[in-house]
Amino acid sequence: MKRPVHGGNLAWAAALVGCSPSAILDFSASISPLGPPRSAIESIQTNLGLLSAYPDPAYGDLRSALSDFHQISPDWILPGNGAAELLTWACWDLAALETTCVLTPGFSDYFRALKAFGARVDRCPLMFQQGLNALPLDAQKSGLLLNNPHNPTGQIFSKPSILPYLKAFSLVVVDEAFMDFLTPDCQQSLIDEVENYPNLVILRSLTKFYSLPGLRVGYAIAHPDRLSEWQQRRDPWSVNVLASVAAIAMLKDTEFQQQTWDWLECAKPALFDGLKQLPGLHPFPSAANFFLVKTERSSVDIQKQLLTNHQILIRDCLSFDELGDRYFRIAVRSEQENHRLIEGLTKIL
Amino acid sequence: MKRPVHGGNLAWAAALVGCSPSAILDFSASISPLGPPRSAIESIQTNLGLLSAYPDPAYGDLRSALSDFHQISPDWILPGNGAAELLTWACWDLAALETTCVLTPGFSDYFRALKAFGARVDRCPLMFQQGLNALPLDAQKSGLLLNNPHNPTGQIFSKPSILPYLKAFSLVVVDEAFMDFLTPDCQQSLIDEVENYPNLVILRSLTKFYSLPGLRVGYAIAHPDRLSEWQQRRDPWSVNVLASVAAIAMLKDTEFQQQTWDWLECAKPALFDGLKQLPGLHPFPSAANFFLVKTERSSVDIQKQLLTNHQILIRDCLSFDELGDRYFRIAVRSEQENHRLIEGLTKIL
Repeated sequence: MKRPVHGGNLAWAAALVGCSPSAILDFSASISPLGPPRSAIESIQTNLGLLSAYPDPAYGDLRSALSDFHQISPDWILPGNGAAELLTWACWDLAALETTCVLTPGFSDYFRALKAFGARVDRCPLMFQQGLNALPLDAQKSGLLLNNPHNPTGQIFSKPSILPYLKAFSLVVVDEAFMDFLTPDCQQSLIDEVENYPNLVILRSLTKFYSLPGLRVGYAIAHPDRLSEWQQRRDPWSVNVLASVAAIAMLKDTEFQQQTWDWLECAKPALFDGLKQLPGLHPFPSAANFFLVKTERSSVDIQKQLLTNHQILIRDCLSFDELGDRYFRIAVRSEQENHRLIEGLTKIL
Repeated sequence: MKRPVHGGNLAWAAALVGCSPSAILDFSASISPLGPPRSAIESIQTNLGLLSAYPDPAYGDLRSALSDFHQISPDWILPGNGAAELLTWACWDLAALETTCVLTPGFSDYFRALKAFGARVDRCPLMFQQGLNALPLDAQKSGLLLNNPHNPTGQIFSKPSILPYLKAFSLVVVDEAFMDFLTPDCQQSLIDEVENYPNLVILRSLTKFYSLPGLRVGYAIAHPDRLSEWQQRRDPWSVNVLASVAAIAMLKDTEFQQQTWDWLECAKPALFDGLKQLPGLHPFPSAANFFLVKTERSSVDIQKQLLTNHQILIRDCLSFDELGDRYFRIAVRSEQENHRLIEGLTKIL
């Protein structure tokens, strides 16, 4: 079985260890360990009867729920089969420009999607914890694909620090897949700028914060004309009905949202401290629910030993060209699970 | 609310009548009234725990089940978010050719997808019940997009009648979304020709025969090189995990398959006879689970009256340019429901 390009490939890890995927403690996929919320599962169970009809191609109910959640008109919202699907259409738009700036290291699927549509890519190296200074400020014929908070480094770009680039670039796509993990007062979302900037596209995921990556649901927020064009490119029933009803339930689940922020408030600093105290490991501060860790030893070796000896899967960074074998990424999990990871690492290092 | 382009838009019909979508008796979507099979629903319920992990990007289990079902190697199979998603990528390939022949009347989404990628389309009028004679036999620079059985006419093209076009065209995409409704001895699938023709692509749906259009699952069968290219264009997790486990269960559900063929054997001829006896209606013989009906009165009027007076939705044919307001399409449903339709029509006509 080939090493997976993406994180979260439990099938690969399970085959390597010879156990079932559910027996693996997965730190590789940056999703919340608290979910899925009961509200989502109950909504799926109650609505199984909807499966025998086509989804509403307008996704009226889901758009309306997202509209309430973000206080933005439904026309400016397009649900998708995961944010990943919408990335495909965003990259189509970017590919029409002379070049697209992508911060590196960057999610490998950005490069896959841009390449699929023949885009020319400018890799802009992100200085760790140095903000967006690597980006040009005169790029009227170019696009910018940004990730905020940034994966895999975990750094957050403040709203004011991004605004100049909305004027500098012809099209700016901001992947905010991990923004929900910040408490509302700390979030730096550009959603309320969309109406001011027709060249701004926001991508959001519902599967990371609510732990439903198997269900596939995300959305884009952008000018209605752009979203109508995207709908012409794709088929009319992109989001399955169970994803739609689960999303509606989760958006209203303020209790789960608060639980998540409470958990992170405790678990994140504890895990960071635990990692920092291990010999040869250097975790980077993170605004999101994961940490990038620099290691003096091979991360592939550490990954293999954790998997074989402890059935723990961490994310190697081989798919991030600029990082390679001296970095790994881990999700924040429950305090008990984080403790298991630290114990496992202690035995190896 | 705008009139829907596609059939099966229950939200539109329900809003028009002022009832819930589930109160509408839907003859407009050509899906089986027997399903979803219990096997599929049970598999979904049992596997809700899978939602918290990403789907296996290789879809190994699903590919393997499809491989067993069709007796073709897994490499030749690509699952998709409904056949509709795969149509998008097939049309991308067709758009690279000088022109694409599409039989008309044809499913409006064919034209949507071809147009999205800038394809030049040759509309080839299908003579009712006259086979493929409208197609050219020297079209080395062209593609062909074929639907077998044909929607909305219901006619089936025999395998030998299609084979010459596999030699004549540069690329042939055959949408076999309704093929499962024919008993195995009557099916005219080209699946066992795929290994002989690298220019052949078969699209299959699992949502019509198994009544799960809300779940989104279909697949393509074609040369592995082509399918690898398609995977580069789309994101890695196109099929949600519940669709995947339901599909695996359904493919093995031979009892449900037999029930469907038994039901159609009785219900279809009875409905055909019932329609034929109504004044001004002329149903066309059909190999599939639906009938195209020519009407001497406006089909939009008939649709509206059936909806308002009887909460029955039929499919107008306005989205098929060549048909317009003198045709409608209906799915075959249970004998009792078909009877309700005939009674409703009797009162109107």
